[in-house]
Amino acid sequence: MQELSIQTSERTQLLDITAKVAAAVRADGRRDGIVTVFVPHTTAGLIINENADPAVRHDLLDKLARLIPEKEAFYTHAEGNSDAHLKSSLVGHSAQIILEDGKLQMGVWQAIYFAEFDGPRQRQVWIKIT
Amino acid sequence: MQELSIQTSERTQLLDITAKVAAAVRADGRRDGIVTVFVPHTTAGLIINENADPAVRHDLLDKLARLIPEKEAFYTHAEGNSDAHLKSSLVGHSAQIILEDGKLQMGVWQAIYFAEFDGPRQRQVWIKIT
Amino acid sequence: MQELSIQTSERTQLLDITAKVAAAVRADGRRDGIVTVFVPHTTAGLIINENADPAVRHDLLDKLARLIPEKEAFYTHAEGNSDAHLKSSLVGHSAQIILEDGKLQMGVWQAIYFAEFDGPRQRQVWIKIT
Repeated sequence: MQELSIQTSERTQLLDITAKVAAAVRADGRRDGIVTVFVPHTTAGLIINENADPAVRHDLLDKLARLIPEKEAFYTHAEGNSDAHLKSSLVGHSAQIILEDGKLQMGVWQAIYFAEFDGPRQRQVWIKIT
Repeated sequence: MQELSIQTSERTQLLDITAKVAAAVRADGRRDGIVTVFVPHTTAGLIINENADPAVRHDLLDKLARLIPEKEAFYTHAEGNSDAHLKSSLVGHSAQIILEDGKLQMGVWQAIYFAEFDGPRQRQVWIKIT
Repeated sequence: MQELSIQTSERTQLLDITAKVAAAVRADGRRDGIVTVFVPHTTAGLIINENADPAVRHDLLDKLARLIPEKEAFYTHAEGNSDAHLKSSLVGHSAQIILEDGKLQMGVWQAIYFAEFDGPRQRQVWIKIT
């Protein structure tokens, strides 16, 4: 298992970690299998989405914040980040990427994003190849 | 890795691909492991849901469209498909199905659906057994 | 493949199954790989979330019920549980956990929850290590 260390800079943020995951795969040396990427946090997750127009990431976080606002009168969790827990549960904490010929097999428009929902924080991402 | 080719016919649609995934598994020949099904697009995803009453699929897409409408005044992405990007991020791009005795292990009511959110388009699904 | 049997007691409920999954992994004996946890139902799913303050689970189910209410005038599925089908599609039916040194590798605040959305029912969870 390899560990990436990530510093986020906003409360909610999508950080492209595709190149870091690819570098970890090269360092491992295996050329065929499944790459499991796992986020060991409860207020962050993983999203696969478009790597081109940054407006996609902006709209995605904007709409998600309108659906699941940071403040709601009925929230009971004292830390005030219930929205982040729900968002991370919805997008999920792992991705499974096919590895062939030493390359991550992804669509031409796809990137792997670390989804920060309660930053800024120092975060980890775990990677294992099977 | 095997590739399925899928033609969708609506803007949003749930297409049952269970039989195609099962055929790909038989063609591979392995009888035990994990089947990873992966969608290499950013405006489509994968859903596991009920294979019986079509009303379930109708209600699922209908409610999702009301939560995340195609048009919102605040969307900034010029292609006008921000809703599709968000929906695909929420349902996810892969499924992991247990394979034993040569059979996909799924619940009696479960099917694997290709979730089209910005069709109609020609789409791909990748399958790998480990 | 191992099977857990779970009895839920509410219509919607998050049940911590981390200890049961860990016990299944010890029973299997393998010490390294990926643990796939799979829910073979269409009105339940799996969530990884906080294991400490129960208010997090309360707020998560509460907000989800407000976004996706049990009753909507436009639902067509006669069984009246369209909300449960959509919720399970959004949170997903499986988790992949890294296994090293015989231990599930999870964050200190993370637990694996069986997410019941149409209980109470007798439910199953399948576990396979690769």
